Amino acid sequence: MTNQATEERVLDAIGQRRELVNDAIDDELPMAEPERLYEASRYILEAGGKRLRPTVTLIAAEAVTDVPPLSTPYREFPALGEADAFDLMRAAVSIEVIQSFTLIHDDIMDEDDLRRGVPAVHEQYDVSTAILAGDTLYSKAFEIMTETGADPAAGLEAMRTLASTCTKICEGQALDVAFEERDDILPDEYLEMVELKTAVLYGAAAATAGILTGAGEEVVDALYRYGIDSGCAFQIQDDVLDLTVPSEQLGKQRGSDLVEDKETLITLHARQQGVDVDDLVDAETPAEVTEAEVDEAVAALEEVGSIDYARETAEDLTARSKDHLSVLPDNEARSLLEDIADYLISRGY
Amino acid sequence: MTNQATEERVLDAIGQRRELVNDAIDDELPMAEPERLYEASRYILEAGGKRLRPTVTLIAAEAVTDVPPLSTPYREFPALGEADAFDLMRAAVSIEVIQSFTLIHDDIMDEDDLRRGVPAVHEQYDVSTAILAGDTLYSKAFEIMTETGADPAAGLEAMRTLASTCTKICEGQALDVAFEERDDILPDEYLEMVELKTAVLYGAAAATAGILTGAGEEVVDALYRYGIDSGCAFQIQDDVLDLTVPSEQLGKQRGSDLVEDKETLITLHARQQGVDVDDLVDAETPAEVTEAEVDEAVAALEEVGSIDYARETAEDLTARSKDHLSVLPDNEARSLLEDIADYLISRGY
Repeated sequence: MTNQATEERVLDAIGQRRELVNDAIDDELPMAEPERLYEASRYILEAGGKRLRPTVTLIAAEAVTDVPPLSTPYREFPALGEADAFDLMRAAVSIEVIQSFTLIHDDIMDEDDLRRGVPAVHEQYDVSTAILAGDTLYSKAFEIMTETGADPAAGLEAMRTLASTCTKICEGQALDVAFEERDDILPDEYLEMVELKTAVLYGAAAATAGILTGAGEEVVDALYRYGIDSGCAFQIQDDVLDLTVPSEQLGKQRGSDLVEDKETLITLHARQQGVDVDDLVDAETPAEVTEAEVDEAVAALEEVGSIDYARETAEDLTARSKDHLSVLPDNEARSLLEDIADYLISRGY
Repeated sequence: MTNQATEERVLDAIGQRRELVNDAIDDELPMAEPERLYEASRYILEAGGKRLRPTVTLIAAEAVTDVPPLSTPYREFPALGEADAFDLMRAAVSIEVIQSFTLIHDDIMDEDDLRRGVPAVHEQYDVSTAILAGDTLYSKAFEIMTETGADPAAGLEAMRTLASTCTKICEGQALDVAFEERDDILPDEYLEMVELKTAVLYGAAAATAGILTGAGEEVVDALYRYGIDSGCAFQIQDDVLDLTVPSEQLGKQRGSDLVEDKETLITLHARQQGVDVDDLVDAETPAEVTEAEVDEAVAALEEVGSIDYARETAEDLTARSKDHLSVLPDNEARSLLEDIADYLISRGY
């Protein structure tokens, strides 16, 4: 595998579907009254985003049903067996809408004032509007998922998966908040938090394709695990990038996580190796830290093998995520899912 | 109809079901990890509440299927026609859990620090935990509703109703917040806000019973309208009680809405009659206002007929809500639903 060829294939695959997904978001989440509420609800969705999760849903359905990528209309997608065609795109939109809801509420809790290069919803509007915009996207996502027209038993199972996924995301966010008060977090606890907070939605994005196409339990389970493992790898790669990619490429100060005392798999590993992580940088804010200071911290983390440990963990998870796909038919869409998993840990930003 | 006999029947009906509902809430929403999140999520449910909405669901199902009240296990409730028995209690719990989620988030937005006589969740814990506890109840409610075991098409329809109801509740809360900035609200706009913010969940509580038992569209629609009209009447009665019931019986200062400049159907009507509502009381907080001041304000509102107007509107809505029930079999459960509608506007607190 050449990283660059993989990355190009993945970016193409995402790019080819992004406009379709964006148009569908517009259709499924039209402006309505009260205007300010719907403006705030659509604001973060309109600010951009790769649409990675809906892309995973769309390609996973192509892999399961063994149709060539982009050969079949997503709005009238064939299910396996006797079941009627259904609106796969709605399921993909539903997942993206859930993602947006979690971003809005997380930004309030984490007091993050910027998102996708624009002010967060609670900054652009206010906290009440942000709470309510998140709540509206939450119910809209469920509404949209009820409207796929898939076989009702499959539709209900997709709802069950979506709902339990949202519960897990809340649990993960609660763990993340609780971790801020603790200095004895174990790497495994961190990985559990990442699985709940971030990876389960990737799992749901992939599994929902299996559920709605009427694939069996083995396939649905494999897709879910594919999403979980690659989603965890994705987050770990994010933590690595924060230390290793130049600030201009990263779009924010390199080393921000360290400055802001955010624990990652890297710092937790370093603590276990006896590194005094809290002393690695003196700066109190990302604006104050110097490149030299970050370089020195990174050298210390490299010396005890913490960055390699994170990279290797992400690679192991990625290999595992691709292994799960072996129960799917061997086709172009499956190969794209494998590429996406590779891309999630080879991407430079 | 003697008010007292009606009230006794209704309080009996609620009381007989409250323990069953409370036990079911414990079963369906058990403690889990992270502990603090689940404690906060259960906190408001454990603080009490009449369980009026789940009671409506349970009795509505008895009315539709024509079984005597309390004769049939709610956990294995017979559907109409060929469909299997299903867990009606889960649907009832789901509705109550949604109600709790909305209370938690509304209290943050409205900066209400007390709820059911105890500190609101954002006071007892913190704002982040309250946002997350609400979000958790939100997804839990959807999870629980997917697990009724009803016919899948009916189950999916119940999910659709629950989701669209939640969207409407958000719209209603957004209107309520927006109204605080306006001084030109029309009574009809106020009633629309009340319908969205408060009444649709009563509508969903009743309609869900029809959907899951497999009743036809006419019955489901009638139950929904029963809930909407009696839910609106309930809120208007709340506004009347705030002015007419002694503070000790009310559990808070009589006239609080006036002191806090909260518009109600009463004040909006009075404005249309040329009353300078903003000048009715001088006090800035409920703690400062005197009974004499409230008496004088009430007299002014009575003089232009605003309190009678609100009472009559509530009575009309109640009469309409009961009329909708005429499509149901004439049985004891239906009569109880009628009594509940009467009780919602005859109750003294």
